[in-house]
Amino acid sequence: MNKVYVVGIGPGAGKQMTAEAQEILALCDTIVGYTVYVDLVKEQFSDKLFLTTPMKREVERCRMALEEAKTGKDVAMICSGDAGVYGMAGLMYETGVDFPEVEIEIVPGITAAMGGAAVLGAPLIHDFAVISLSDLLTPWEKIEKRLKAAAMADFVICLYNPSSRKRHDYLKRACEYMLEYKREDTVCGIVRNIGREGETSEILTLKELKDTQVDMFTTVFVGNDETKELNGRMVTPRGYRNV
Amino acid sequence: MNKVYVVGIGPGAGKQMTAEAQEILALCDTIVGYTVYVDLVKEQFSDKLFLTTPMKREVERCRMALEEAKTGKDVAMICSGDAGVYGMAGLMYETGVDFPEVEIEIVPGITAAMGGAAVLGAPLIHDFAVISLSDLLTPWEKIEKRLKAAAMADFVICLYNPSSRKRHDYLKRACEYMLEYKREDTVCGIVRNIGREGETSEILTLKELKDTQVDMFTTVFVGNDETKELNGRMVTPRGYRNV
Repeated sequence: MNKVYVVGIGPGAGKQMTAEAQEILALCDTIVGYTVYVDLVKEQFSDKLFLTTPMKREVERCRMALEEAKTGKDVAMICSGDAGVYGMAGLMYETGVDFPEVEIEIVPGITAAMGGAAVLGAPLIHDFAVISLSDLLTPWEKIEKRLKAAAMADFVICLYNPSSRKRHDYLKRACEYMLEYKREDTVCGIVRNIGREGETSEILTLKELKDTQVDMFTTVFVGNDETKELNGRMVTPRGYRNV
Repeated sequence: MNKVYVVGIGPGAGKQMTAEAQEILALCDTIVGYTVYVDLVKEQFSDKLFLTTPMKREVERCRMALEEAKTGKDVAMICSGDAGVYGMAGLMYETGVDFPEVEIEIVPGITAAMGGAAVLGAPLIHDFAVISLSDLLTPWEKIEKRLKAAAMADFVICLYNPSSRKRHDYLKRACEYMLEYKREDTVCGIVRNIGREGETSEILTLKELKDTQVDMFTTVFVGNDETKELNGRMVTPRGYRNV
């Protein structure tokens, strides 16, 4: 059966790709993706046919992959991080309804929450919530509700898409909601360019985070009530009766 | 400087390990871990010294790794899934305070939430919460609060440690809490033995999940209000104004 693999290539491709993802990219005829991600794998898999679409052309990109598979090719659609976390896996299944002859398989990857956590230390050790601050496809009221609920129940919170040119004050607003339930000195961390050139990280308090400007290449971590800074690392204990 | 790497080997080791994790296991002198995980990598890295401790001896395991690094060895402590999600990364930093001469580095891996999601389809595409039902280190009231908050704010919810011999009714109780806010026909999924021999999965409603008996090798996914079943896959759309 013709097949499209939706492959998470990890935060920066390369070393953080799984052996399975590498195997599948190696065996495929065609690699489809957003231009920036295709550039990350082009050198390593130079014998492939590459098909790209610019940002925000996701449906077109899925159809392109499915059409290509229909002609008998093995196709990999690549996504940054994990294909199943704010990635293309869902849209591929939705678009795939029109292509019953094409099988779809998801190949997991390291998402920014895991990759960024490893850079900061161990912030996600206990229950956590992942929330995107992008209101492109989600009403802001829904995002606000989730931020408050997660803060109220003392989750560690990981924020994706914390900022963009049009949404420069979203992180500040998110911090204000969380400050209704979390302490001002809650330990937080930010990581920029996870797994790529120019990777940087910083540990700061929730109060400081509120007035920090971040960009769209940044992932934000907000600790729970027990999260601490330990020798420059952000560390969440495993539980309350911690040894 | 002497170094301990805390390495997530993915849900079933092998193909879901990253290239970075494989590189580090290859270069280390000693691999430390819980017996079951060590058995997963023993064959591939047969020239290493292996040190193991049984379950629930986590502090001892960390000290063992740090002591070994102190003697000048490069040491990898391996964890199933991701070292930073209910893994040993946090405890290693906490134990490492007594070993200032040993550097600690975390190497991320595919956690069960990502690995299981890929098996089911695309359940985690939008905001999600990860909650462990184990009350070994967390009071049940805290777990209850988190389940209700996550359900109330319409997160997709991924449950780790949904059951054990002593906690056979925990998943049922968790479903009852979530049913206060989520519909009975909310699309859910369970995956057993992710990435290992005997991997199985099932899609069912939240009402059915409530009366389903699962074991400790199972990861549970509870959809949000928009999650649907599509050709036998569990799929969450990207947002409310979905295309």
